[in-house]
Parts: sequence; C-alpha cells; structure tokens
Amino acid sequence: MAETTVRTTPDALDAELLEATLDAALDAARAGDAARVEALLEPVHPADVADLLEQVSQDDREALLAMGSAVIDGDVLSEISDAIREEVLDALPDDVVAEALRDLDSDDLVDIVEDLEAEDQGRILGAMDAADRVAVEQALAWPEHSAGRLMQRELVVAPEHWTVGETIDFLRKADHLPDQFYHVILVDPRLMPVGYVTLGRVLSSGRDAKLRDISEESFRTVTASDEEADVAYIFNQYHLISCPVVDGAGRLVGVITIDDAMNVLDEEHEEDMLRLAGVGEESSISDGIWDTVKSRLPWLAISLVTANIGALVISQFEAVIARIVVLAALMPVVAAMGGNAATQSLTVAVRALATRDLTGANAWRVVRRELVVGLINGLCFAAVMGLAAWLLFGAPMVGSVIGLALIITLIVAALSGVLVPLLLNRLGFDPALSSGTFVITMTDVIGFFAFLGLASVMLI
Amino acid sequence: MAETTVRTTPDALDAELLEATLDAALDAARAGDAARVEALLEPVHPADVADLLEQVSQDDREALLAMGSAVIDGDVLSEISDAIREEVLDALPDDVVAEALRDLDSDDLVDIVEDLEAEDQGRILGAMDAADRVAVEQALAWPEHSAGRLMQRELVVAPEHWTVGETIDFLRKADHLPDQFYHVILVDPRLMPVGYVTLGRVLSSGRDAKLRDISEESFRTVTASDEEADVAYIFNQYHLISCPVVDGAGRLVGVITIDDAMNVLDEEHEEDMLRLAGVGEESSISDGIWDTVKSRLPWLAISLVTANIGALVISQFEAVIARIVVLAALMPVVAAMGGNAATQSLTVAVRALATRDLTGANAWRVVRRELVVGLINGLCFAAVMGLAAWLLFGAPMVGSVIGLALIITLIVAALSGVLVPLLLNRLGFDPALSSGTFVITMTDVIGFFAFLGLASVMLI
Repeated sequence: MAETTVRTTPDALDAELLEATLDAALDAARAGDAARVEALLEPVHPADVADLLEQVSQDDREALLAMGSAVIDGDVLSEISDAIREEVLDALPDDVVAEALRDLDSDDLVDIVEDLEAEDQGRILGAMDAADRVAVEQALAWPEHSAGRLMQRELVVAPEHWTVGETIDFLRKADHLPDQFYHVILVDPRLMPVGYVTLGRVLSSGRDAKLRDISEESFRTVTASDEEADVAYIFNQYHLISCPVVDGAGRLVGVITIDDAMNVLDEEHEEDMLRLAGVGEESSISDGIWDTVKSRLPWLAISLVTANIGALVISQFEAVIARIVVLAALMPVVAAMGGNAATQSLTVAVRALATRDLTGANAWRVVRRELVVGLINGLCFAAVMGLAAWLLFGAPMVGSVIGLALIITLIVAALSGVLVPLLLNRLGFDPALSSGTFVITMTDVIGFFAFLGLASVMLI
Repeated sequence: MAETTVRTTPDALDAELLEATLDAALDAARAGDAARVEALLEPVHPADVADLLEQVSQDDREALLAMGSAVIDGDVLSEISDAIREEVLDALPDDVVAEALRDLDSDDLVDIVEDLEAEDQGRILGAMDAADRVAVEQALAWPEHSAGRLMQRELVVAPEHWTVGETIDFLRKADHLPDQFYHVILVDPRLMPVGYVTLGRVLSSGRDAKLRDISEESFRTVTASDEEADVAYIFNQYHLISCPVVDGAGRLVGVITIDDAMNVLDEEHEEDMLRLAGVGEESSISDGIWDTVKSRLPWLAISLVTANIGALVISQFEAVIARIVVLAALMPVVAAMGGNAATQSLTVAVRALATRDLTGANAWRVVRRELVVGLINGLCFAAVMGLAAWLLFGAPMVGSVIGLALIITLIVAALSGVLVPLLLNRLGFDPALSSGTFVITMTDVIGFFAFLGLASVMLI
C-alpha cells in the first residue's frame, strides 16, 4: 500500500483535465476497450463517473455500462441519480451488481434499494450478502424519509467507564470499522446512548483519562422514526458531524453522519425550489421526455383553470373594454406587477419557513411588514405608472385608475405571498405547494377585478 | 468536569420545551432579571439563542441584549444572521464583545468582521487579542467569498514519516488544538500538504504504523483564492469532511471544515432561489421595512418596463380587440400559461446549472428535450382550451387562434427558460439572474404578439 497512498487524482478544480479524461473514457467505451476505460477511470472519483453516466445520451450510457466493473463499482452505483438508477441496474449483469454492492455500508445499500420497483428490489436484495440483506430489510421496515432509512448500522460504541487506553486497544483490534466515523458513542449497560467523545479528544487525552470525563458537553440523539427533514435541520442548526439514532425504547440502533444529512438538505432545497415553480419534485435534468411532461402538466392544468377564472372576471367587463380599448393594453401591466410581487414575498416566506426563521413568534410581525412593503411599492409604482399613463394617453383618469389598481394589487400580492404559505404550513402541508402557479394567478384575478372595476366606476 | 459531561439539553426535536424555555427567558429579560435569563439559557444551544434574537421585536431584542453576557457569548455572536448583526454589536458594551470574541476560532471571527462597516470593523478588531487580530487581518487580505476567508488557521499537521505513536504523543502534549478536527494533514519539509489521515485510521492503527502508509487514497486541496461556491461544490460532490487550503505557492495555510462548506451551500441555494424570484440576494425575514423595499423595488421596476413593452404590443392591436372584445378576456390565459411554463423550465435549468448537472456535454440534448416538451404541453392545452373557447363563444376560429397561440407560447416559454440561463452562464453571469421577472414577462410579450397577430389575420 505504501507506494500508492498519495494518489494524484485530478484536482477537483481542474475541470479541464477531468473533462478530457472522461471524454477519452467515453471514446474507449464506444470502441469497446474495457481495459483502457478502466485505466482512464481509475483515478476519477466515483461521483464524477456517475455524473458522466447521467449526462451522456442513452446510447453512450449503454456503451459505458457494457464495460461492467470497469465503470461500475459500489460507490458509482450509490452516486447515481434516481432518475437513471433503474435503467443502470437493468443493464448490468448480476455478478457486476453483486460485486459492486459488497463495498457499501448499510445506509448506501438502503439508498440504492428503497426507490426501486418491487421486482428490481428483489433482484438487488438477492445479490447482497446475507448479513447486508438483513440489515437492509430491517432499515426498510422504518417509514420512507425517516431517520431509520438514513442511518448506518455500523457503529463505534464504548461503555462510559472505559479509559482512552482501553478504547484505543479495542479499536486497534476491531475487525470491521465503519468507513468513516467521527465519534465514539458512549452507552450504558442497556445500550442507551449517554454521550459521545470526538476522536480528536480521544487522541489528545492521556491513556488513563475516562471517556465519560472527556465527552462532549452537548449531546443529541434522534429517533429512527423521525422525519429525515427534521434530522437535516438539526445537523445544520447545531453543526453536528454525526448523531446517534435510537429506537422507540431509547436503545442505540445506528448513526447518521453529516454527508447523509447534507444530502437530505440538498434534496429538501431542490424540492422547495421545484415545488414553488410548479414542477413535480422528482424532476431532474436527466429525466426523459415523458417524465418531464408528467412532472409539468398537472400544475399547468391548474394554472389553466385559474387563468380562466381571470378570463371570466375580464369578460364581465367587456362593455367597458369595448368603449376604452386602452384598458386591454394596461391589463398585463397589472398582472405582471402583481405576479412578480407575489413571487417575491412567496419565495421569502417559503424559504423562511423551511429554515424555521418564520415561526409563530414573528409571523404577525412579518405579515404586517409585508403589508407596509406592499403599500410602499404600490405607491411608488402607482405614481410612476399613473403619470406615464396620463402623459401617454392624455387621460388623467386612466392614470388614476391604473395607479389605484396597482396599489391594491401589490398589497394583495405581498399579503397572499406570505399568508398562503403560513396557512398551508399551519394545516400541515408543505408551504412550497403554494406555488407561483396558484398564488400568482389568484393575485392576477384580484388585480384584474380591481383595475376593470375601478375603470367601470371612474371612467364611464 | 466529570459531573456535567452529559448535559441534558432540551432535545432538538422537542420544539415545545425549547419554545417554553425561550419564552421564559424573554419574560425574564423584559423584567431585567439577568441571573434568571442566564440560568434559563445555559442549556440552550447558541444557534437557538441567535434565532430568538432574530425573531423577536426590536424592543424585546434590546431587552435581551441589555442582559449582556447572560445572553451573548462568542457562539451566539457567530450564529446571528447578518441582517441584525450590526444592530446587536452596536447595542453591546465593549467588554461583553471582547469576552465573546475570545472563544472563537479564526474562521468565525472573520465571518463576524467581514461584512461590518469600516467603523464597526475597527471597533471589533480592537476588541480582539493581538494574535486573533493578525489572523483576521491576514484572512481579510483574501478576496471576498474566497476559500481564504472561509478557512480556519488552526491546523493539525505532521510530517509523513511520523508514526502513529509519535502523532498521539504530539497531540497529547499539544497546547492548543482546534475545536474540531477530523484529519491529520501530512506535509513535506516545505510545508506542502501531501496527504491526510483520518483520525479513525490513526486510532485503529498500531503505534508503529507510519502515517504515510495509512493516509487516504484520494486527497484534494483547494487554493485560498478559489471561490467559496467552488469549494462548497467539491465538499458536496466528493463527500469531504475537511479540506486543506494552500496559497499560490502550494504551501498549507489553513483548513476548511464541512460545517463551513454546508453553510456556503445553504447560502448559495438561498441566493439562487431569491434571485430567481427577483429578490435582492441578501434578503431575510428579519430585514426591516426599508431593507425589504430596497431588495424588491429594482426587479419590480424592471418588470414594469417589460410589462409596458407587452402593453405596447397589445396597443398595436387595439382595432382588433375593439371588434372582438373576447380577445381581451383570453389574453391573460396566454400570459399565465406562458409564464408558468417558463418558470418551470427556468427553475429546472438554473438548479441543474448550480449542481453542475447541466453542462456542455448535455446542453443541446436538454434544449431539444425542452422543445419537445413545450410542443407536447402546447398541443395538450391547445386542444383543451381551443375546444373550450369554441364551445363557450360558439366561434371555432377563436378556438383555433387561442390554440395556436398556446402552442407557440409554450414552446417559446420552454426554450427561453433553458436558453437564457445557459447564455448567462456562458457569459459568466449567475444564471439565476435570468429571474422570472425577465424571462416570464418576455414570454408574455411574445405570447400576446402571437395571439393578437393570429387573431388579426384569422378573425378579421
């Protein structure tokens, strides 16, 4: 091992070298030269190999997968996005899959298996070692998106009366340690976790020091049935590196490490962003055409319905529009301003709810602030647009109508942008579901009504 | 220390207990009872204290800050959001600030100081120990948002020829170790990093093992001048826990740990989300009214201009609208569908660029896919809406016009949603700047033009 320890991987920032290597590997795969593919990909990080598989066309992906274990190992398999994982697994022979799975810790195995269809799941479970299979099946017994699915079962535990010396001797003799671990978890005789010690403290304390005397001041556990989103919040809020997981009876059953939590946080962000935009949450750039259509059509359909409510409102004022056609030209100004202002306050509110910065304690203060901000913005744009309309159309009353309509619309936009997500949150729904599609189109409807209603009162 | 090691902090998931404790502390602060505030907040995590300060009203914040070090220590100070940090520092006496700063590592000190105004910056630097001040001033010499600003200078290094025994002996004698460290970094005699060893490997290897023989297979460094966004990407992509930082000459100058990288990733997400919504990126729910207005007004102003281009387009067709007023009612349907479809493809594209899943390698495939998806969605909604318009208004030609206009609009929306961010990215701008405000309103303009243009050709 001595000679190869400091492997010169392509520097992560040197994107050019990495790209050239991946291009060469792809060419070699197209030519069917597995040995060259293996040599080229050897120094490449599995995450980059997975990205290559995601980004190439389906034909090229097939060519790469035909190289078998020259391209695929356990780490690559666990890095591959859900969008193409099923396709990749279907294309690989059983022995390649079995060999790849052998390297992985239980949490990565669960991650690979849990989203597969039943048939594929059976095949992959069958390819695992018996011990791994049992661990995965136990993890799958916890609900989806729970801490129990996220945790790894490989643990480093010690009784709290152990000394540093005993701990080091134990670790030196241990057969199988987890790939990564950052703490020694202290347990009582009933396997209840009572604290943990960072490896840095173990290393820097004398052999005689007792673990209980050097354990961390603050110590948290999560329950296996907790939502993974709550777990990610705790890691982020309290800067945890790892966190023990207990079952309903308080007994230690696993540990979650920060890389898994970071992953969940990333997915939560993505979900919020996509939901806000009215895109099915599972969307990715590697989706095929039909998956993409499926993820977008439902919200567009809702938008069609709400837009038609707007059309209905407008059609009530056809007589006014027929007499003053300039109103038709100004309607989109009201809609655009309302829609954009609603998006602004909606996005800030959804984000603040996700980071738990918007809570019962400050909700009413935030709502009041949105009201005032909406009023100020409304007054500003009412002045500018009202004046412009007056000068352009030589009709001061048209200027007044559009000005007043903008004030009303911007206040409604700011308020609904914060009230709708707050309400959804209170009712237990994801506030990001108050997506633009809904709040914005409703703001439009109110804006049209205000604008045309004022016009029919003030201009006729 | 022995008795207090396993402190029973309120369980992070037990939100009720935490809230009750914070409420009681706030009441005590209002009553001016510093001793009770200190006792109540003692078991509360600094991040939760910081959240309390952010969420209460300004009066309550002043009451809490008047409690001085009963509320504020270094960790609380470093957790507080930028939105109120200046206000907090201004309210605290010098000695409380100086005492708080004494606990912190250099990266946290830089984080506190870097965004302050010059006057406050001078005051805070003056409150630091001389050694800390020098470290912070050196860090501030690196560009904003660079790895040099993010790194801590507290390091654990060893020559690669050291054994595990020598390393443990060194760590046991070390005066001042970083609060958290996860690797021993191996350096050559010129202080160039050549690899690193996880603490788990150090602990589980025999005393005679050489560090170079147990170092990690893959090893990456970043340069202090690298962008922090690139650093965060590397941590996320390669699952790093810590990463050594080198200067231009390749010498080790610091280390970045995953909690800082996670923070940056979080901020980048927030920036993308807010920029997409046309909100100034520094916005937060704790901003005052004027900061909020300032962050939102500019994009609304741009939206006013683009919306008026739409109004201009419509006004060219006033004669058509005056004859067929139902067109005015159907215009918002075109705008809403175009706007929502554009938001969908824009959000997916911006997100994929941020995670580097959308690259030169697959850009054209993604653009082609958007074109096909736009066409399919267009055909679906053209059929539904065309039929509805025909039945509602008894005019098949109106149905054809709105149907054709929807097909054109949805294709334009899907394409511009992906092309505009790709173009901005290629030109070196942040693709999130192609915010809804711009792409959507431009899609509206094209939609109006298509709809009314077709109407004037086909209906008159």
